[in-house]
Amino acid sequence: MRKGNFTLPGEAGYEKLTLDLAQRWGADVIRDCDGTKLSDEILQAGYGVYSTICPIREHNEWIRRNPESRQQTFLCTQPRLADGNRLSIAVMKDFFDEQFTVNDTQSAMRYWQVYDRTNNQEVKNWTWNSEQGTAEIQTTPWHEYTVSFLAWRIWEEISMYNHVTNDWNKEHLLQLNPYLLHAQAYLREWFVDWCDQHPETTVVRFTSLFYNFAWIWGSNECNRNLFTDWASYDFTVSPEALDDFETKYGYALCAEDFVRQGKYNATHRVPSQKKRDWMAFISAFVRCYARSLVDIVHKAGKQAYVFYDDSWVGLEPYDGHFEEYGFDGMIKCVFSGFEVRLCAGVPAKTHEIRFHPYLFPVGLGGAPTFSKGGKPGRDAFNYWVSARRALLRQKIERAGLGGYLHLVEEYPDFVEAMDLIVDEFDRIGDLHDIGAPHVLKPTIGILTAWGSLRTWTLSGHFHETHMHVLIHILESLSGLPFEVKFLSFEDVKNGAAADVDVIINAGKAGSAWSGGECWQDDQVVETLTEWVHGGGVFIGVGEPSAAAGHHTALRMAHVLGVDIDYGEGDCHGRWSYEVADENKLIPSQLTFDQPLETVLTGPNTVVLAEACNHPVLTVHDFGAGKGIYLSQFKHEQAFTKLLTNLLLQASTGQTQADGIAENLYTECAVYPQAKKLAFINNSDQPQVTACDWQGKRYEASLKPYEMQLINIE
Amino acid sequence: MRKGNFTLPGEAGYEKLTLDLAQRWGADVIRDCDGTKLSDEILQAGYGVYSTICPIREHNEWIRRNPESRQQTFLCTQPRLADGNRLSIAVMKDFFDEQFTVNDTQSAMRYWQVYDRTNNQEVKNWTWNSEQGTAEIQTTPWHEYTVSFLAWRIWEEISMYNHVTNDWNKEHLLQLNPYLLHAQAYLREWFVDWCDQHPETTVVRFTSLFYNFAWIWGSNECNRNLFTDWASYDFTVSPEALDDFETKYGYALCAEDFVRQGKYNATHRVPSQKKRDWMAFISAFVRCYARSLVDIVHKAGKQAYVFYDDSWVGLEPYDGHFEEYGFDGMIKCVFSGFEVRLCAGVPAKTHEIRFHPYLFPVGLGGAPTFSKGGKPGRDAFNYWVSARRALLRQKIERAGLGGYLHLVEEYPDFVEAMDLIVDEFDRIGDLHDIGAPHVLKPTIGILTAWGSLRTWTLSGHFHETHMHVLIHILESLSGLPFEVKFLSFEDVKNGAAADVDVIINAGKAGSAWSGGECWQDDQVVETLTEWVHGGGVFIGVGEPSAAAGHHTALRMAHVLGVDIDYGEGDCHGRWSYEVADENKLIPSQLTFDQPLETVLTGPNTVVLAEACNHPVLTVHDFGAGKGIYLSQFKHEQAFTKLLTNLLLQASTGQTQADGIAENLYTECAVYPQAKKLAFINNSDQPQVTACDWQGKRYEASLKPYEMQLINIE
Repeated sequence: MRKGNFTLPGEAGYEKLTLDLAQRWGADVIRDCDGTKLSDEILQAGYGVYSTICPIREHNEWIRRNPESRQQTFLCTQPRLADGNRLSIAVMKDFFDEQFTVNDTQSAMRYWQVYDRTNNQEVKNWTWNSEQGTAEIQTTPWHEYTVSFLAWRIWEEISMYNHVTNDWNKEHLLQLNPYLLHAQAYLREWFVDWCDQHPETTVVRFTSLFYNFAWIWGSNECNRNLFTDWASYDFTVSPEALDDFETKYGYALCAEDFVRQGKYNATHRVPSQKKRDWMAFISAFVRCYARSLVDIVHKAGKQAYVFYDDSWVGLEPYDGHFEEYGFDGMIKCVFSGFEVRLCAGVPAKTHEIRFHPYLFPVGLGGAPTFSKGGKPGRDAFNYWVSARRALLRQKIERAGLGGYLHLVEEYPDFVEAMDLIVDEFDRIGDLHDIGAPHVLKPTIGILTAWGSLRTWTLSGHFHETHMHVLIHILESLSGLPFEVKFLSFEDVKNGAAADVDVIINAGKAGSAWSGGECWQDDQVVETLTEWVHGGGVFIGVGEPSAAAGHHTALRMAHVLGVDIDYGEGDCHGRWSYEVADENKLIPSQLTFDQPLETVLTGPNTVVLAEACNHPVLTVHDFGAGKGIYLSQFKHEQAFTKLLTNLLLQASTGQTQADGIAENLYTECAVYPQAKKLAFINNSDQPQVTACDWQGKRYEASLKPYEMQLINIE
Repeated sequence: MRKGNFTLPGEAGYEKLTLDLAQRWGADVIRDCDGTKLSDEILQAGYGVYSTICPIREHNEWIRRNPESRQQTFLCTQPRLADGNRLSIAVMKDFFDEQFTVNDTQSAMRYWQVYDRTNNQEVKNWTWNSEQGTAEIQTTPWHEYTVSFLAWRIWEEISMYNHVTNDWNKEHLLQLNPYLLHAQAYLREWFVDWCDQHPETTVVRFTSLFYNFAWIWGSNECNRNLFTDWASYDFTVSPEALDDFETKYGYALCAEDFVRQGKYNATHRVPSQKKRDWMAFISAFVRCYARSLVDIVHKAGKQAYVFYDDSWVGLEPYDGHFEEYGFDGMIKCVFSGFEVRLCAGVPAKTHEIRFHPYLFPVGLGGAPTFSKGGKPGRDAFNYWVSARRALLRQKIERAGLGGYLHLVEEYPDFVEAMDLIVDEFDRIGDLHDIGAPHVLKPTIGILTAWGSLRTWTLSGHFHETHMHVLIHILESLSGLPFEVKFLSFEDVKNGAAADVDVIINAGKAGSAWSGGECWQDDQVVETLTEWVHGGGVFIGVGEPSAAAGHHTALRMAHVLGVDIDYGEGDCHGRWSYEVADENKLIPSQLTFDQPLETVLTGPNTVVLAEACNHPVLTVHDFGAGKGIYLSQFKHEQAFTKLLTNLLLQASTGQTQADGIAENLYTECAVYPQAKKLAFINNSDQPQVTACDWQGKRYEASLKPYEMQLINIE
């Protein structure tokens, strides 16, 4: 008998399949899905009923009568060259005209801007030809110009994506902008009705809230995806909100604050104060209005869960205000371990993860899942291996699936994989119920420009952010037995380093993850220098603490004992070095790519590994602490093991510790209260492994991907 | 019978060897060398006599009596961390104490500076403890500090290098600073005496002039070479010169202007106006005083040649003033083809190249040449192959060797190699005597921050600058049948682009070669945009036109059709592309390394080659002209052929042209007046090749490294 912590998508016409699998996987609730309905037979089978609602879509009729309540965004055209004194720019030429249409209402035009991108100056001498859809600009010959304008968004983006990916052919859904008061009133009324008309629904699953992450499509099929950022607030703008912002904050935002020379404000860049202010302004509105909808749900005697994906923008689970929403649960779809931790750390009563793959014919990037050539059982297991190690670290109460259940009929391998996954999920949950797993020193601080607001995430899924080394580190850490905190530079200046043993700073120069211009603050450098000198460990990965204008390219070079030469050192000598023999620290499977031009700052930096005649892993004693430099990090077993070793050695002086599995293809979690030790095999090969716990050695032989629970004393 | 255009080093005690080889290689003059003497038998054998003089060394006795006339430099200590409110920095700790000693005279101390490198501020609260050799600084805890100070240089650097490399054990030579008036007077008098005492000398070979290129050695053998820049003026400073500079230019320079946060002013960086002013100031002095020495030589009835190496700083052969020196000849030692062109283009009556290897036991980087394990014949031939293709393009009147002649006795392979080299050198000279080789379109402009001042060079030899793509391009161009001009950004703004068909901009972001902050000038962008639009071809290599702060990372991205994403584009889509089939343009031998994150700016950029899924070679039509982007360039035959093809196609629309050899391992030069065609084989394998000339086809089978002259009609 299962525990009853599983959400199964049901499907009318497949009643037997629905109820059989509900029994088999221990479901307690059955859900509908975008495009499916539940029949009476399912609704009356004694299960709870999840109903998904995306509150801002499915209002096409009302929106057509009230077109000013469509959602909007700023767009910036590609630069166009002037070969004379006049230039005509057709503003919509670059953009997907099924997604956008120009908003040239009077209130919107106030926010339009034309820029000379060659001299970075705003141009005032231009006129709008609304019939032609062109901006007519007086120009300097051979300069480039852009037009930044407000556009209505006329196709809800998730629906648009599903249409295009899955060849849907339905009415294009619009999206309501609940910032407008009459839209709010309409939506509340509609929602009260909806609750009345769905007495069988026990849980209202908000398929996110009001604003989609930024997703701008282009007119040309050779470059359809112009800009996508899971955490950008571009799609929240409207003249009304911008006007109110000016009143509240005392200064006005303009198009350029959003489009930034056409680069937009990707979350990977250090946020300006203006961006932070706008996010806070929108979040306050989203929270306040969403709460009024949650109250309607509760009044109707139902629970309210929120799905933290798609139109989540404005909802910030780590901004300290999440509990004000009043949600009963938080649901997160999970490709990766870090997403498990992201979900688990939110202050919600119930945390639920949505397993991948979804029951759709086609998955990510158009790869087949439940269609010809797909291997959904294998996929499910691969995702499970990523999620499981994080589930061992922190408790998630519920799990579930999404999509069209009938698709599983032809894929028994998937059903069998889910049997095992659901079973392991339950067993892991049982361990947590008895007591938390053992946590080792050191406590780790991840230092970024975002700090805790981007706890256990950058912006989006792993595959969207894989070019940032920090997501690899987070994914590795998500399954390791260390406590992880997320620190901003303000936190550090306010003394937060005292609460951690190790600080990791990782990323490309200029990015929000390395910290970019936050490193221009001398006080940050002073504080961290003193902290390391007093015994802290600073681990820098990639281009940590990089900031231009100083005597070193990395501001923490004196601590790391390593700097990066971007060309200033072409005429400078290099410290020669021998590579230290540290085979206990460095897994033999590890290989490094050619690094940037890393240089030692002096003779006391110990080089542990090199690639292409450059140091790629170094340790530098600094006062009572140390600086550690790693040129790169990839989420793979050898790097994860290296990180574990570095953290343990920095903390205890040795790489062995209680509860650390010897074989790097395996990991271990110890549950002292449950008196259990969980070994997992993360590989597709049999593995033999062992670990120590309180003076005893425990061994295990694990089948591919197996989890074994072993009694400890 | 040889032509009599060869300078042979003679050696007392080896009279027969000297005279035999003089006869064999057609020497007309015999030279001494640092460490050798010519005996009477040699002096009276009827040859001209070159005597080498390094005017600023060999004056130890006088300098010891006048220590204020030693040469100097600014040094900047490594940064030191303050862990409290006081810090004591021993300023000489980092530096080689046989090369430097502190100048803490009153006039020098005015120029010392202490810097807080953490906040980039000069510190005024410090005192100098001359007994301890320490600066005592009041500090902010956890900041880093440097001391920049004037040091006397107490070991002439070339002598120091030879001592260390060749285990010399002689008195350390000092170097005279002729900026001081009494030193000038002394040196002139000494030089008049020298000329009197050397009646046999027919040519005084100035082993450069007064100031060595910057070469700062460290105290630690693990990092002996702290800074080397063949074209930096660091070694020209003295309080007297700095004081006079202030009077002349109306503003004062300080230590920081030279040490730049410890990075110094390497030639690879864009020169500031202060640096340019200081160079002009020193060059004017060097020219004026050197002219007075040349006049002494002429008055004594001798000729004056200058050797453009070692202590050449201040002598700028391309600053438009070279003829004012009155030199009769210019000598350049040659590893590479670009150095042949550098020498050949100087407005001197006679140009002489010094072949490598020198007759020393040990060569570059300590590799054996005329000692156990050395293969000097092979080395000579390798250098010759590099030089020969450039010699085919432009006339050099004379050649010669340097070093200790007796070393050749045990290396008959070297003597035989020289037989062939001297013969080919003569045959090439004969062709030039009849008429210049045929030159093809296009005319090429190399655009850098230095412009023509650094014609056919970056700063130093190929192996010292190999990390800069431009030296690879120059080396390839040095043997190609195109006219090459060297343009600065000022030149371009003044219309110089009109004189060329192609502009090449190549280098790392921020470097003098790509242009760095010169690209911040919008007028440069306008001018070049208009020029390309009107039909010019802009070839960008590496990070061409890179400058921060704009809508594109490369300011010429709109022309190139390519930009580089340094992280701003992580959330942006990419234009998809197909790689065009251009096998006529791209040699099959060509391979590209992984490039930076290159991105297309639109659908009209044609990708000719890709590597690691990124464009590495693109062509973009722009108005009547085009932009061509190359991610990298290496001086090897396939890249040289690619460049030739790109230049020809940009100019004529096809890759074939008169006088272009078909086989990329071979090259060709056509001498219309001499009615000869010279084929050269640049490889160590036999090659069959052919080329067209005025409607006829000429073929050749070439032995390894062979040169063949073929009659044309």
